Amino acid sequence: MKTFRVYVFILLLFSLLQYINPLQAQQSQKASSAGIEGEWLITVDYFNNPLEQPVIFINKGSTLSAQFVGDTTTLTVMQKGNSLKIVSNQSDGSKTEYDGIFQSSEASGTVMMYDAFMKDTSINHWKAVKLKMTAPASNHLVNFIPTSFERGFSATVVPVLHIWPGDTIHTESVDAGGMDKNGKRRVLGGNPLTGPFYVETALPGDVLAVTITHLQLNRSWAFSTQGIVDRGLTIDYAQNHKISFDGVRWNLDMQKGMASPEKPHEHMKNYSLPVKPMLGCVGVAPWFGSQPIGTGDSGPFGGNMDFNNITEGATVYLPVLRAGALLYLGDAHALQGDGELTGGALETSMDIQFKVKVIKDTSIHIGGPRVENAESIMAVGLSGSLDDAFKEATSELAKWLQHDYKLSPEEIAQVFGTAIEYNISEVADRNVGVVARIRKSILAGLNK
Amino acid sequence: MKTFRVYVFILLLFSLLQYINPLQAQQSQKASSAGIEGEWLITVDYFNNPLEQPVIFINKGSTLSAQFVGDTTTLTVMQKGNSLKIVSNQSDGSKTEYDGIFQSSEASGTVMMYDAFMKDTSINHWKAVKLKMTAPASNHLVNFIPTSFERGFSATVVPVLHIWPGDTIHTESVDAGGMDKNGKRRVLGGNPLTGPFYVETALPGDVLAVTITHLQLNRSWAFSTQGIVDRGLTIDYAQNHKISFDGVRWNLDMQKGMASPEKPHEHMKNYSLPVKPMLGCVGVAPWFGSQPIGTGDSGPFGGNMDFNNITEGATVYLPVLRAGALLYLGDAHALQGDGELTGGALETSMDIQFKVKVIKDTSIHIGGPRVENAESIMAVGLSGSLDDAFKEATSELAKWLQHDYKLSPEEIAQVFGTAIEYNISEVADRNVGVVARIRKSILAGLNK
Amino acid sequence: MKTFRVYVFILLLFSLLQYINPLQAQQSQKASSAGIEGEWLITVDYFNNPLEQPVIFINKGSTLSAQFVGDTTTLTVMQKGNSLKIVSNQSDGSKTEYDGIFQSSEASGTVMMYDAFMKDTSINHWKAVKLKMTAPASNHLVNFIPTSFERGFSATVVPVLHIWPGDTIHTESVDAGGMDKNGKRRVLGGNPLTGPFYVETALPGDVLAVTITHLQLNRSWAFSTQGIVDRGLTIDYAQNHKISFDGVRWNLDMQKGMASPEKPHEHMKNYSLPVKPMLGCVGVAPWFGSQPIGTGDSGPFGGNMDFNNITEGATVYLPVLRAGALLYLGDAHALQGDGELTGGALETSMDIQFKVKVIKDTSIHIGGPRVENAESIMAVGLSGSLDDAFKEATSELAKWLQHDYKLSPEEIAQVFGTAIEYNISEVADRNVGVVARIRKSILAGLNK
Amino acid sequence: MKTFRVYVFILLLFSLLQYINPLQAQQSQKASSAGIEGEWLITVDYFNNPLEQPVIFINKGSTLSAQFVGDTTTLTVMQKGNSLKIVSNQSDGSKTEYDGIFQSSEASGTVMMYDAFMKDTSINHWKAVKLKMTAPASNHLVNFIPTSFERGFSATVVPVLHIWPGDTIHTESVDAGGMDKNGKRRVLGGNPLTGPFYVETALPGDVLAVTITHLQLNRSWAFSTQGIVDRGLTIDYAQNHKISFDGVRWNLDMQKGMASPEKPHEHMKNYSLPVKPMLGCVGVAPWFGSQPIGTGDSGPFGGNMDFNNITEGATVYLPVLRAGALLYLGDAHALQGDGELTGGALETSMDIQFKVKVIKDTSIHIGGPRVENAESIMAVGLSGSLDDAFKEATSELAKWLQHDYKLSPEEIAQVFGTAIEYNISEVADRNVGVVARIRKSILAGLNK
Repeated sequence: MKTFRVYVFILLLFSLLQYINPLQAQQSQKASSAGIEGEWLITVDYFNNPLEQPVIFINKGSTLSAQFVGDTTTLTVMQKGNSLKIVSNQSDGSKTEYDGIFQSSEASGTVMMYDAFMKDTSINHWKAVKLKMTAPASNHLVNFIPTSFERGFSATVVPVLHIWPGDTIHTESVDAGGMDKNGKRRVLGGNPLTGPFYVETALPGDVLAVTITHLQLNRSWAFSTQGIVDRGLTIDYAQNHKISFDGVRWNLDMQKGMASPEKPHEHMKNYSLPVKPMLGCVGVAPWFGSQPIGTGDSGPFGGNMDFNNITEGATVYLPVLRAGALLYLGDAHALQGDGELTGGALETSMDIQFKVKVIKDTSIHIGGPRVENAESIMAVGLSGSLDDAFKEATSELAKWLQHDYKLSPEEIAQVFGTAIEYNISEVADRNVGVVARIRKSILAGLNK
Repeated sequence: MKTFRVYVFILLLFSLLQYINPLQAQQSQKASSAGIEGEWLITVDYFNNPLEQPVIFINKGSTLSAQFVGDTTTLTVMQKGNSLKIVSNQSDGSKTEYDGIFQSSEASGTVMMYDAFMKDTSINHWKAVKLKMTAPASNHLVNFIPTSFERGFSATVVPVLHIWPGDTIHTESVDAGGMDKNGKRRVLGGNPLTGPFYVETALPGDVLAVTITHLQLNRSWAFSTQGIVDRGLTIDYAQNHKISFDGVRWNLDMQKGMASPEKPHEHMKNYSLPVKPMLGCVGVAPWFGSQPIGTGDSGPFGGNMDFNNITEGATVYLPVLRAGALLYLGDAHALQGDGELTGGALETSMDIQFKVKVIKDTSIHIGGPRVENAESIMAVGLSGSLDDAFKEATSELAKWLQHDYKLSPEEIAQVFGTAIEYNISEVADRNVGVVARIRKSILAGLNK
Repeated sequence: MKTFRVYVFILLLFSLLQYINPLQAQQSQKASSAGIEGEWLITVDYFNNPLEQPVIFINKGSTLSAQFVGDTTTLTVMQKGNSLKIVSNQSDGSKTEYDGIFQSSEASGTVMMYDAFMKDTSINHWKAVKLKMTAPASNHLVNFIPTSFERGFSATVVPVLHIWPGDTIHTESVDAGGMDKNGKRRVLGGNPLTGPFYVETALPGDVLAVTITHLQLNRSWAFSTQGIVDRGLTIDYAQNHKISFDGVRWNLDMQKGMASPEKPHEHMKNYSLPVKPMLGCVGVAPWFGSQPIGTGDSGPFGGNMDFNNITEGATVYLPVLRAGALLYLGDAHALQGDGELTGGALETSMDIQFKVKVIKDTSIHIGGPRVENAESIMAVGLSGSLDDAFKEATSELAKWLQHDYKLSPEEIAQVFGTAIEYNISEVADRNVGVVARIRKSILAGLNK
Repeated sequence: MKTFRVYVFILLLFSLLQYINPLQAQQSQKASSAGIEGEWLITVDYFNNPLEQPVIFINKGSTLSAQFVGDTTTLTVMQKGNSLKIVSNQSDGSKTEYDGIFQSSEASGTVMMYDAFMKDTSINHWKAVKLKMTAPASNHLVNFIPTSFERGFSATVVPVLHIWPGDTIHTESVDAGGMDKNGKRRVLGGNPLTGPFYVETALPGDVLAVTITHLQLNRSWAFSTQGIVDRGLTIDYAQNHKISFDGVRWNLDMQKGMASPEKPHEHMKNYSLPVKPMLGCVGVAPWFGSQPIGTGDSGPFGGNMDFNNITEGATVYLPVLRAGALLYLGDAHALQGDGELTGGALETSMDIQFKVKVIKDTSIHIGGPRVENAESIMAVGLSGSLDDAFKEATSELAKWLQHDYKLSPEEIAQVFGTAIEYNISEVADRNVGVVARIRKSILAGLNK
């Protein structure tokens, strides 16, 4: 059976989606609501899966009103002291009832879910915490030296650090093979990442903006290969040229910012290029119900995009799919041609500084990673073929122009027809990447 | 950085692959080797990842000789009582030394690995168990009622049952949405599977043959949808026909073996088709270093193939990637058209009987799932596009004919040119499936 | 600049499409209209391209009324004796005026076309003939021995024969290499075809149904290759197996209907399969403005589909794009596996009997070839990738069910989800082919 | 049956390829060879197809020796006065014999071809002319005002002009819709081109280099559309945004070199971009046996590439497939975003100046169009999917580096891994285009 898009329908709708579009509001009983109003994160232990449900309670004098975050429908709330029942009914007859005890900053209880399509009722436990939604008065520079590294984008790994939007985080990453800045293996290879960072205030439905404020080499060598991945080869070329993936070591001149092969072949004795440090991986924890996703993979949550414009100064926009977003980054490259044809780019460890911002605007429907730098806005399409990635990048950039610049589909076509540009960011992994881009100088000519 | 194929190269070669192709053999010291000879499974705790390394010790009189399973090169063994050192050297200068104490059926110690490319030495702990490689004298019918269900193909889940090749296992599966034969939710939806079953004697490099000896409806309803997945739609069709994925319930007449919509639309009041029960998922635990893979996904390890010929009587061949193979099955469909266009087929719970066989032949290089039934041999190509899946299915079937029928590439072309057939098994998931097939009546005309 | 779909828009709309959707009707002057009423084919010499415009004149007593065939809007007609002016105005200000002299069965004149978008007026000559739209009272068996063969689907080749719907045509084809039934080269290879046949009454907008009533071997040998086309090969397989495309000759036992290699390789000494004669090419002349299309190519007009179900008893449905349709057929194969992996199947000459039918129903929008046989209805998707061909086949079959069985999109999804089947017909040419199929036994369960 | 690659094999090999690889040389009879030595173009009327066979005669004193151009094997020549017999034998037993009378600059005769695979002998007529291979002493500027325009890349259209390498040709093109610089329709739309130009000295096997020395707007308007082609749309976007392909007119400010919509929509009132004039089409006549190819199509012969770097200063390299190459150009765009998403770019007429060069180096195997400008060398992959076009572009650029820079496959991988860049040139036509590029600044670091 299919997953993801339809998955949302079949696997969850039958049991869960009713909670997202509750229909009715009824008044609650008189009670002291002091301390309950505000945003809570209810986490249902749904058959051993943590189902997060942010709720806002609003104090209406003697009664409490409630809404699911990102949904304007008022829920039925019944209150008796600090004991609450919250009820949501759906048009198809499905129904959910949360019962529980709310204390100053914690709550717990049980939830009854009736699924009208499946004709089944289940009862599960939940816990809740009151969310801190107000940032500290001033921003900080936070130094974080990682001691563990993650090989999966997971929602269940304990965050290494809670960070606030506006703070600057200074940290470092090991290389794709698991070697640190001292050339010491710290972890099994396969893009082990730094994180996850829990971003305060970030809730599902928000957009997380991650800005790389500084990215700097911290050792004098990188490794790569001397092969070309299958996706770059015609049958004819492959039959006539033996391809091996033997490793190649590169020297990195940290002073001059230049890369050159350690033991250059005959024609490459003078081959020396300026480095362009980049992060191969920036991603967040995936959607409810997902297994951890290997850090070699990518998707709407970002991940191993291997896009050589994710450099110092770039901002990556990702959808928040879990409370706290749970941000992972790493897999730095000193230099990478488009597509990462050699399977590995110039893989090295890196010093990283970044800031995050949480954008709360439910009218943004971010279907895939977006990147912005001083020159351009860029939508990254990630899929199993270049043709599908191309569609995704183009359509996502169209949605961006529609939302931020208020362009009609006809206007978007005219802008694209005259000014769109494409990169092929990555062909070395399961998903390939196509990037659609409009320069900001072009956007300057549009009347918002 | 890229994963999988190249991944094997970069991420593991630098640290691990030397252990797979050791080069030299030297004699070991005199010692009592009683009890050590035979097959052992060494599991290195490689930076918290279980790295399995099967080894065979052969008693050469007063000395012990050793080989990694699947490799004919003799390793250096030094013995002092039940204390052993096993050394493997590689041509590039990489080196591995296992030190440890062997008891009758268990052993443990440390391993030093020097990685010549990365210029790094690491030390990790290992444990080992002596393997039971001889099946019981007679086969059994084993009845297994599952109480838990898995949503990922994982190598670290504790097996629900150890089974022997030749035994017949009788069990059952919940439907893709997590509902059991009584219509009771047992687990979050998303293809929760029965297993994993640990197959005795199965080691990495072997082939696991899973034969479905019996497959039977065990409830009177299934669910599906009334939408068509994006991969089946042209832009023109999509723009002119609203597509929703609302759920549809089907009645299953268990006596007559017929399926019909519960509330049929106008033109489908007499629509009733014979069921053809199948398993959407048959898979094993993935390769070393992999995250658990969601049960909606597929690959060389099998998984969610959604191929409607995986029915009673079919045998599925999968590569063994971990000790015990760790077999998962489920996601049964009462009936499914090619491609599973509706995202979900006629999803239902099922009674399952199966047998396994372990094929130990290192000349078989099984690159993807293979299926055999009374009529045909079939290779399943799984990839991000039909074009790539087509290449895989065709080339894998060619390899099958080459190995089992000794055909030359020219003969294979002539057989394919006159007799190959294709199915499109699945387009509803991330990987699509293309099946290449040759009928056994055709194969009967070949001289082996 | 893009062609075809958009092409119709840009290149023709600006000058021509206004003639297809005229807007107004006004009365014509008194005159004798005797002999003019009925269907005419106006052919404008549009900058040296034959632009066909079928018109119907209806005698309204003393005045004439006119419509373009396939369009219900009445045109303005002004008549003075046998001198007529026909005017069509478009909403965008574009305008067309035909002026000319009509005689009993022929007419000629000039046409002024004003293109409001391009702001240009052009004047061209036209000729017209009165169309014979009534079939002869009885059908005939027509024997046609070809003396020339065509290597392009062209609208400007003089038809070899005019045929009537209902007649049975008996003819023959040379093989794909240009060799006839006597093994004599008659023409350069590359799928030289028999035809074109002008089908009386067929006009643009109609559907042509071509039924193969008989298909029979007429010589004792075929040729093929021993290679596999690139689309069937993974890089891994290609690098490890040398592929050549040397020719292979096959014996055809015309009595027993069996095929076997003339000089069989070691394992194929007993390889002998029943033949299944098929036509690789059935196609019509392409749309206005198109260059002739090579007979190795395919598209909505049919062509080199290489689908091994186009056998005796099958009916191929094609859109009529030119007056008379201009039907070509040939490229027969004694036997072909799915996909025609060897580049050439068992290529041979063939005896062919066929019938045609012209379906006049403007509610059928046939976007690609359709095939029907005793068991199934089948839509052929033809495109540059299997993924795109899959979309086309699926969506076209959906349109077929919608039109002929009145199914809603939801009903179509349920039928597809339970009963659709796919073939991969062809991967050896520029377009690949995917066939979507529903068995007639399934359709029998639908209430029309 | 398949065409092109395999086509060359099956359809021609059986009858023709033997002429390309003759095997033996024998001495010719004594005779006066005066006037025959030098290069001749023999054109066989091969079943009504012009089969060109360039031959060099070398005067060896009293005897003549001959070779096919591009082949070093000496042919058997028998001479009696000005009557010659030229014989070529192939290893498979195939044989060709040309008999004819040679005069000072013309010759004619018959040719017997025995095809050992097909077991067939055919006799056809041929004519020959002696080739002018020496350029005039000085180059010229040639002004050419076209009066006809071609809608197909054809080998049989009479050239509009014979040009010499080194001369500069000044000419002009109509727009893709057929409108000239005065806004007057001159031809049916669909990329009508200027040419064909016969390039003296160009023979099959050579490479033609076409340099655009000057490209200049010659009217004040262009047209385009406000739609996006299907390849840029996800199903989701398409279902939520109505797409039409209505025409849009653009003003071109010829003084300032700026483009802006004639009737701008709300947000585009200030939208004005610098023009970047380019040629959408540069192509040569296709291979022997091909039908004329519509000028909306592309392939190894170039054609409608719609690559926005084919601007003033760029050189396009194409394989010469016919004597004289037969060069066509046009379909100019004032400005085009990558991919030509709107189906038509800013389509306009143009003033063109260009030069050609003929490169005679049989070690260059140019599999697809190549482009060079001041910054980069670029290989254009053209295919039915982006994935296949990507393979072609990458592998062709690898071949370029291998030939011109003597790089090994391992060196190529390292250069690509660090420095390759990609454009997606075109998605609006049947073939899509992917361009692989290396900057010349990178190449400067390589030791040839």
